[in-house]
Amino acid sequence: MALTDCIVDIALIHHPVVNKNGEIIGSAVTNLDLHDIARAARTYEVRNYFVATPFKDQRALIGEITGHWHQGHGAEYNPVRGQALQLIKPVESLQQAVERITEKDGALPLVIATSAQQQEKTISYRELLKQAETNSRTVLIVFGTAHGLAQEILDECDGILPPIRGNGDYNHLSVRSAVSIILDRLLGN
Amino acid sequence: MALTDCIVDIALIHHPVVNKNGEIIGSAVTNLDLHDIARAARTYEVRNYFVATPFKDQRALIGEITGHWHQGHGAEYNPVRGQALQLIKPVESLQQAVERITEKDGALPLVIATSAQQQEKTISYRELLKQAETNSRTVLIVFGTAHGLAQEILDECDGILPPIRGNGDYNHLSVRSAVSIILDRLLGN
Repeated sequence: MALTDCIVDIALIHHPVVNKNGEIIGSAVTNLDLHDIARAARTYEVRNYFVATPFKDQRALIGEITGHWHQGHGAEYNPVRGQALQLIKPVESLQQAVERITEKDGALPLVIATSAQQQEKTISYRELLKQAETNSRTVLIVFGTAHGLAQEILDECDGILPPIRGNGDYNHLSVRSAVSIILDRLLGN
Repeated sequence: MALTDCIVDIALIHHPVVNKNGEIIGSAVTNLDLHDIARAARTYEVRNYFVATPFKDQRALIGEITGHWHQGHGAEYNPVRGQALQLIKPVESLQQAVERITEKDGALPLVIATSAQQQEKTISYRELLKQAETNSRTVLIVFGTAHGLAQEILDECDGILPPIRGNGDYNHLSVRSAVSIILDRLLGN
């Protein structure tokens, strides 16, 4: 069973997310989240990697970084990197990502959040695959930076994947690792 | 079926690895490989995360970085990070990591390399689990930085895991993503 017959998009949210005290913040875009997550997205044939931030200068920064690998020196030095980074689409918010998908597909995506904590509205991997396949809907998987997605984002989503657990109770993976693991679970051979 | 009854160690090799032209090089230790991979290792209850470099100043740098999170300001700011970084053991080479394990366990580990290319001596995930469980041996999974492990490292290993593939032919994951995915496949619930 695999999601490979569906369209999968991902979104990395920089606002609203929470800090270590649970307060709502806007986090900074990092070069590394762009590169590592784009490479994983390209490997698993994700369609779009939306990077959401309400800060205009941060969206401009995303364009500068990706431009270096599309048209700049990076494109010549390492052409395969540009193939990954071209999946990146800067957006203002999760809502704007959903609007872009809906406009393209003519239907709302199934919006699935991720969290390091067990949440209400948990949807199992099995159930997600079933729903996506039954309804042939695009699946948008939503990841948080900093200490995770704000409650208002979790509330907007159709379901939340269970936290990634190893054998113990340590659940402090980087978002880069979390994206890689979740894409492999959903789309890996 | 899971490796969770076995001891699993991982090693990240900075020399000998290859550059984009296939030439043998020594790569630089990066802060991010230490943090992201230690967090994944801690999540999946890996015993040791060996970071191998023959360069003494690079091993000293590893000690400075991890020290900040063990005893420094970082330990106070984010105590869970230190729990991950304490898995890091700087060593001069893969051979030294193997010696340390053998000394501790009284038996050689099963040394398993990883590669983005299909290699001779491929061992499937299923076969690895079977061998490790049958012989109750520690498994040491070996990852390369830069463009991957040099042939001499591949030759020293007992087997090589198949490349991680998504749905297509793009196989340029970061080593941080590759470690996360392989640990989840071997040790995830």
